[in-house]
Amino acid sequence: MAKLFETAQDAEDAFYDAFEENNLDKMMSAWASENDIACIQPMREQVRGRAAVRSSWEEVFSFGAEMEIEIHHQQWIEMIDVAIHIVHEQLTFKANPTQKPPPLIATNVYRQAGQGWHMVLHHTSPPPPPPQEAGPGMGVPPRF
Amino acid sequence: MAKLFETAQDAEDAFYDAFEENNLDKMMSAWASENDIACIQPMREQVRGRAAVRSSWEEVFSFGAEMEIEIHHQQWIEMIDVAIHIVHEQLTFKANPTQKPPPLIATNVYRQAGQGWHMVLHHTSPPPPPPQEAGPGMGVPPRF
Repeated sequence: MAKLFETAQDAEDAFYDAFEENNLDKMMSAWASENDIACIQPMREQVRGRAAVRSSWEEVFSFGAEMEIEIHHQQWIEMIDVAIHIVHEQLTFKANPTQKPPPLIATNVYRQAGQGWHMVLHHTSPPPPPPQEAGPGMGVPPRF
Repeated sequence: MAKLFETAQDAEDAFYDAFEENNLDKMMSAWASENDIACIQPMREQVRGRAAVRSSWEEVFSFGAEMEIEIHHQQWIEMIDVAIHIVHEQLTFKANPTQKPPPLIATNVYRQAGQGWHMVLHHTSPPPPPPQEAGPGMGVPPRF
């Protein structure tokens, strides 16, 4: 039975707990039970539908990376039955705890339906490159 | 006065027309008039609020790149007053029309309110790297 999350944040907590724990069933419990869901991992093609989203996380978890994930909320855009959370994901790999890679930027979209709040979209991007020394006329060209 | 778009797709058309035309006022007419909007360009930090979103597009347009943008819809997730469009953005620069870079992946979120449909989120990611020759045991590690 699908787990009932009372708030978008509850679903988000389950999502990141599952991510840290490499727990595929818990991960899928955070997602909506319908097939109109999508997941975009950094530098990867988007996947759509529960089966493909499940497979993509199965692949991620198959590497068995042990990590901690700190979430830093950047912005919430809240509507009646939809919530968008933009977060920074600070991953720390337990094999190398002193090194903190730059945080990823993620957009998480949650929808409220009969079964409570669940994730319908997870879109994560690589972080910006480190800041450069910039003088007049040395602006970084846009990467759109 | 804010332009009224009858559908999310109308707002999306205005957004990409403005992008092609380097037209800042038209670009901002595609966005919601409220301040709870966010824009994430590839490999850049997110910006939030109308003033910051406007500044970010002003910077993009200041480079004056002339280009055509083909949009290939990948998936729509439609709710009552919110629509998510996941698209591939195929940019072709007029200075080099025969070379097509790999398409960017974008998540566009639109909200319906009193003034019709407008964009509240644009999140674009760099494309995946080219496919690699892969044999058994040569899986590409995850980049999450």
